[in-house]
Amino acid sequence: MKKVVLAYSGGLDTTFCGLYLSKELGYEVHAVLVNTGGFSPEELKAVGAKSNKLGIASFTVINRLEEFYQKVIKFLVFGNILKNQTYPLSVSTERIVQAQALALYAKAIGADAIAHGSTGAGNDQVRFDMIFQILMPEIEIITPIRDLKLSREEEIEFLKAQGVEMDFKKSKYSINKGIWGTSVGGAETLTSNQYLPDEAFPTPISKTEAEEISLTFKNGELIGLNDQEFAHPTEAIQTLEKIASPFGIGRDVHVGDTIIGIKGRVGFEAAAAIIVIKAHHLLEKHTLTKWQIFWKNQLSEFYGNHLHEGHYLDPVMRNIEAMFLDSQQTVSGKVYAKLKPEHFSLIGIESPHDLMSSKFGSYGEMNLAWTAEDAKGFTKILGNQTAIYHQINKTHG
Amino acid sequence: MKKVVLAYSGGLDTTFCGLYLSKELGYEVHAVLVNTGGFSPEELKAVGAKSNKLGIASFTVINRLEEFYQKVIKFLVFGNILKNQTYPLSVSTERIVQAQALALYAKAIGADAIAHGSTGAGNDQVRFDMIFQILMPEIEIITPIRDLKLSREEEIEFLKAQGVEMDFKKSKYSINKGIWGTSVGGAETLTSNQYLPDEAFPTPISKTEAEEISLTFKNGELIGLNDQEFAHPTEAIQTLEKIASPFGIGRDVHVGDTIIGIKGRVGFEAAAAIIVIKAHHLLEKHTLTKWQIFWKNQLSEFYGNHLHEGHYLDPVMRNIEAMFLDSQQTVSGKVYAKLKPEHFSLIGIESPHDLMSSKFGSYGEMNLAWTAEDAKGFTKILGNQTAIYHQINKTHG
Amino acid sequence: MKKVVLAYSGGLDTTFCGLYLSKELGYEVHAVLVNTGGFSPEELKAVGAKSNKLGIASFTVINRLEEFYQKVIKFLVFGNILKNQTYPLSVSTERIVQAQALALYAKAIGADAIAHGSTGAGNDQVRFDMIFQILMPEIEIITPIRDLKLSREEEIEFLKAQGVEMDFKKSKYSINKGIWGTSVGGAETLTSNQYLPDEAFPTPISKTEAEEISLTFKNGELIGLNDQEFAHPTEAIQTLEKIASPFGIGRDVHVGDTIIGIKGRVGFEAAAAIIVIKAHHLLEKHTLTKWQIFWKNQLSEFYGNHLHEGHYLDPVMRNIEAMFLDSQQTVSGKVYAKLKPEHFSLIGIESPHDLMSSKFGSYGEMNLAWTAEDAKGFTKILGNQTAIYHQINKTHG
Amino acid sequence: MKKVVLAYSGGLDTTFCGLYLSKELGYEVHAVLVNTGGFSPEELKAVGAKSNKLGIASFTVINRLEEFYQKVIKFLVFGNILKNQTYPLSVSTERIVQAQALALYAKAIGADAIAHGSTGAGNDQVRFDMIFQILMPEIEIITPIRDLKLSREEEIEFLKAQGVEMDFKKSKYSINKGIWGTSVGGAETLTSNQYLPDEAFPTPISKTEAEEISLTFKNGELIGLNDQEFAHPTEAIQTLEKIASPFGIGRDVHVGDTIIGIKGRVGFEAAAAIIVIKAHHLLEKHTLTKWQIFWKNQLSEFYGNHLHEGHYLDPVMRNIEAMFLDSQQTVSGKVYAKLKPEHFSLIGIESPHDLMSSKFGSYGEMNLAWTAEDAKGFTKILGNQTAIYHQINKTHG
Repeated sequence: MKKVVLAYSGGLDTTFCGLYLSKELGYEVHAVLVNTGGFSPEELKAVGAKSNKLGIASFTVINRLEEFYQKVIKFLVFGNILKNQTYPLSVSTERIVQAQALALYAKAIGADAIAHGSTGAGNDQVRFDMIFQILMPEIEIITPIRDLKLSREEEIEFLKAQGVEMDFKKSKYSINKGIWGTSVGGAETLTSNQYLPDEAFPTPISKTEAEEISLTFKNGELIGLNDQEFAHPTEAIQTLEKIASPFGIGRDVHVGDTIIGIKGRVGFEAAAAIIVIKAHHLLEKHTLTKWQIFWKNQLSEFYGNHLHEGHYLDPVMRNIEAMFLDSQQTVSGKVYAKLKPEHFSLIGIESPHDLMSSKFGSYGEMNLAWTAEDAKGFTKILGNQTAIYHQINKTHG
Repeated sequence: MKKVVLAYSGGLDTTFCGLYLSKELGYEVHAVLVNTGGFSPEELKAVGAKSNKLGIASFTVINRLEEFYQKVIKFLVFGNILKNQTYPLSVSTERIVQAQALALYAKAIGADAIAHGSTGAGNDQVRFDMIFQILMPEIEIITPIRDLKLSREEEIEFLKAQGVEMDFKKSKYSINKGIWGTSVGGAETLTSNQYLPDEAFPTPISKTEAEEISLTFKNGELIGLNDQEFAHPTEAIQTLEKIASPFGIGRDVHVGDTIIGIKGRVGFEAAAAIIVIKAHHLLEKHTLTKWQIFWKNQLSEFYGNHLHEGHYLDPVMRNIEAMFLDSQQTVSGKVYAKLKPEHFSLIGIESPHDLMSSKFGSYGEMNLAWTAEDAKGFTKILGNQTAIYHQINKTHG
Repeated sequence: MKKVVLAYSGGLDTTFCGLYLSKELGYEVHAVLVNTGGFSPEELKAVGAKSNKLGIASFTVINRLEEFYQKVIKFLVFGNILKNQTYPLSVSTERIVQAQALALYAKAIGADAIAHGSTGAGNDQVRFDMIFQILMPEIEIITPIRDLKLSREEEIEFLKAQGVEMDFKKSKYSINKGIWGTSVGGAETLTSNQYLPDEAFPTPISKTEAEEISLTFKNGELIGLNDQEFAHPTEAIQTLEKIASPFGIGRDVHVGDTIIGIKGRVGFEAAAAIIVIKAHHLLEKHTLTKWQIFWKNQLSEFYGNHLHEGHYLDPVMRNIEAMFLDSQQTVSGKVYAKLKPEHFSLIGIESPHDLMSSKFGSYGEMNLAWTAEDAKGFTKILGNQTAIYHQINKTHG
Repeated sequence: MKKVVLAYSGGLDTTFCGLYLSKELGYEVHAVLVNTGGFSPEELKAVGAKSNKLGIASFTVINRLEEFYQKVIKFLVFGNILKNQTYPLSVSTERIVQAQALALYAKAIGADAIAHGSTGAGNDQVRFDMIFQILMPEIEIITPIRDLKLSREEEIEFLKAQGVEMDFKKSKYSINKGIWGTSVGGAETLTSNQYLPDEAFPTPISKTEAEEISLTFKNGELIGLNDQEFAHPTEAIQTLEKIASPFGIGRDVHVGDTIIGIKGRVGFEAAAAIIVIKAHHLLEKHTLTKWQIFWKNQLSEFYGNHLHEGHYLDPVMRNIEAMFLDSQQTVSGKVYAKLKPEHFSLIGIESPHDLMSSKFGSYGEMNLAWTAEDAKGFTKILGNQTAIYHQINKTHG
């Protein structure tokens, strides 16, 4: 009997895949859920219980939160990555870590095939396929949903016919929860001109009083909140999410280019991700030089796109990460923020590496480290080339 | 008697310069106020009346709002320019247009010198000096405040001794008002860790009920609001400012690199500028291709910095503007926004050029323009090089 | 009877396609040769004569040299495009113009299908397919060579069986001649470690005496040679090719990334293209400002790659071309070169826009437009930020 | 008596500085020659002997070849740095290492001042000043040549008056020899339209027979030549220089932007530098992915400019170096080159990391790792967005 490893989440599509692979295609199905922080112990237990009834060969949970942080989130923060200056790549990047864990598992058990429940119209199919092909060029990839082009109703019918009972009530939105944010798709996000209603976002707004917090960064990583240190940045992120999400902070609708060339729109709430990135960015504005900031931005734009498009294994990503990592040596200090309903402001920072030191001069007020003559000479020569250009070419701007 | 053209605003520094140039240095002083939209007719009248008492040779107002829009604001919108992803370059870019108008005026009246009231610690000294040197390489530039390094008190003493009466009460903040935003400097902005208090921002928050508006763009320019067309984009901008500023939208504190190498911090309120740029950006996300968006961003980062640093006359700026302009052919349509106290959200867009058309497929849902086999072939070849790389180098990501 | 337009060159592959489409698939075949400068009138006549014997419905020659120059070559020069700093994209870019002409022709005659003779392992398949799909989304694309995966011998057998007589002697190299260079593929270029032998290059080296020439550019376009003006830049290019190719100038082997992810290697001789680009580049070094040069380079790298990969119709290409075009306003003047066997050197330039004017100072010798004090002030402030950085962070480089 | 450290080379300018500082300004002069590979033991001995007669307090030679290689040359190779795609930054980068060594020495002996012989019209003044100011913000910098604006004749007169005898015959060219190339300035390089005559280049052309060589790289560093390994890359470079310079390879005249805004022109011969960079570049074309190549190029352009402009100590340089270093993991293998009079060609490479492997397919010939259907699907989706763009916007390219 041929073995298949199935990327499994317990939802309708992957439940269908499990049954279809075993009943229709006759595979020995090994369902694997790679948890990158989106599932609580209770949720995992429920998914496991449900899987027991599907007659699959095994159900395994692989925890990859630490790997997700070390390989992805850390660099999303270093790079201040917001796709199209909006979206923290909340869920898309989890696929990359999941696909790698699935490939390793498939190798370990000597699987003949690997399966996932992606459709033919999204990004995930590319992310999964590409990483599988790179890491396991010989393995067969099976994608029942994409291949059969089944409607939701047809999937339910098949499951019912096989005696599977689950909650088939379609929620209006497809919700994908993760440590770096929760995506919300469907209904309004399929249009260009409608915004998600408040109730579409999973966390209701329950805080209305402004709240000041501090975030402590060490070498670009979030290590503390409100002067409390955490054993691991993921704990700090999860705690921040609990503090900030009841404000409705970090909600938005992102529109951008999918890997397959169409425009796609998706809602999200990502309070912690947005606050961490914006706070980190502010700290960098104080501690990095002009050209460090410039080049980090130039590279970030590409890094975020390339990651989003599933090219995690392109070695250029490691090269850029080396640059990001090297740039974080002075990105340490505290950032103060004020949380308010649906938005927040950054109050300021404190850092031993702050380049805005009054020892050298205060912007617009006092020059201590140079003289008026220095400034004149500076300007004279700074404008030299453009002055020559205009004298030679006798044009006016 | 030698003639000097003085960049004049009616404030303490330029009033001092006027008197100092005429009384101490013996110049025939021609005070010129270049209005790029920051002064109302009443304010101009008041400045003019005050200047009459200074014994200067002439006081002239030159209106350059149209030029400011055509040469600067338009491209700030095309480029979605927010310095350090925060600051719309509210006031700094006015200097560029003002300096050019002053140089033309100085040429016209055959001035021997040109004077401005900048200190030696700010950006404006560089912007003024550089543009004067480029356009009038032979003219003498006089900067009394920078050269004398006078304290505010010494300036007042000199003015009083000369019999000049004005309101010498120093406001806590230095406020600089313009059509593209108002800067607020002083006190907290001289620190790294304090935010401006509410009362520091000139426009009090008076609206608390959410308000939906629409912005109409044509080839990247704002031409209408709430379905009303305007004779000129500057009118649309000014109207939007009136609608949105009572919400306290567009307030923030920017920190960034000054031309002279120190970090500088400045507060601002710029409701219209922020909303226009964010709305324009969203429209671009729907109507431009992936690589148009990418390259506009790469260039914008530099364009904004170079403009901020006074390099307006470098011909590279014209080259980049040509690229920006060419990219705006499909950036037409309506953007819907919801204004709320201190923040706003973008609801969506409508455009005949929207690339998110369900005719071709819906992200994550349905592929109409290609098949599952196409997607597989695409992914196969898209991952070709990285697959080869990993097989040859036997490494893992 | 269904009509097909066939991209036809008279070679083995497209001859096979012509017969296969008519005899096996039953199409009314309209063979079209789009000449972008690579075919002489005699060669065209020979191809036409041969086509008469194939029983196809029509054979048409479309001349697109002017369009090739205006849409492609001009911008390759403006951008100094050498892929991987070596290859002038000699032949690859012709496909783009040819595909567009073929699509227009297919529309005009109401064709049901369009066919080309590309294999499944090259770049041309992508260039042709993509442009056809973009311009004629509904048309069927037929690619017999790619689909049948026939060997050369099988193609010949089929042709012989159909009574077609042609010179079936395979030349060792596949030669592709065009105005912007001639590509030479096969044998050594399929390895990584062997260079093409001298005899593989079509033009024998017959000149051994050094020869000095001048090239006259106007707004970035080559308009004259040795003080003789030409009616059209293409004439100047063709004349230059005649002068320079007997030196063996512009020969090299290029290795780079193909569209489909594998590395590809190809030899070429492109005397005119290489000399024009290098001469144009030198003129730019004298007439453009530092940041014009910088940004042109940043964009060129992408522009060349994107063009090579067939993305000519992506509007970002027009945006970048607008930038290139705007940058050429001062790129006028004469460039002097010395041609020698297998290489050449650039002697220097003369231009009214030369920014290297001794009026302002001579590098390393004399400063006329600024003083020692100016230089000191300049350096002081230029180093401000890094000085602050090192004082604050107490690190050493 | 106040102590001054003088950057000393034994030439006219620094000899003048030595005497002037001691005799006119009354300093205790410590002359320091930092040798980064340009001086042979014999030359150093001669300079030392001469210095003895100047009455200065001490003469010290500091060897910094190893540091020059590790801090500069290595990264110039990794980045394939040729300024304006021509100049290997032969001499300019030595200043950076020399300035740092001088600053350390000045600190060690508790100097009050540091002096160098730069004029006010070149780049070196900025490089020296800036690094001294950054590393020793309090030290006084003395630049007699720049301040006094003396002519060569006046310098000689002063020296003669002080009884100094040296060879005052001005050579027509100013020659600056270093391990990474020798610069040649003067006469023709002060014009825009003249090339240096053969005799201006220090190494006469003595080899005329073509010679094939191989270069062995390990992780981007040159470690061997013709299958002989060297104890240190600097030895390999020096050996290669001996092999290749008699061919007249690597001669050219560079024109580019100086730090002070004027254009500058300089001749050079740099056989080893040019061959190493071009060979390294070719190896990268075979072993790096498309986007590694792209981003290395984007960064190299800036890195080379910023280094040339003396910004070595900006931490962005370390960040970029981290990226470069990380990219070199697979840049190992052999490169074959053929040396000929005044030029060379690269024959090919051999590397275990070569991505051009026929296992996966041969460009244009055979696709083994994918099918015709894969290629069609790939192209279909690759062109998706531009196809949608053109259908929606009904425009033609």
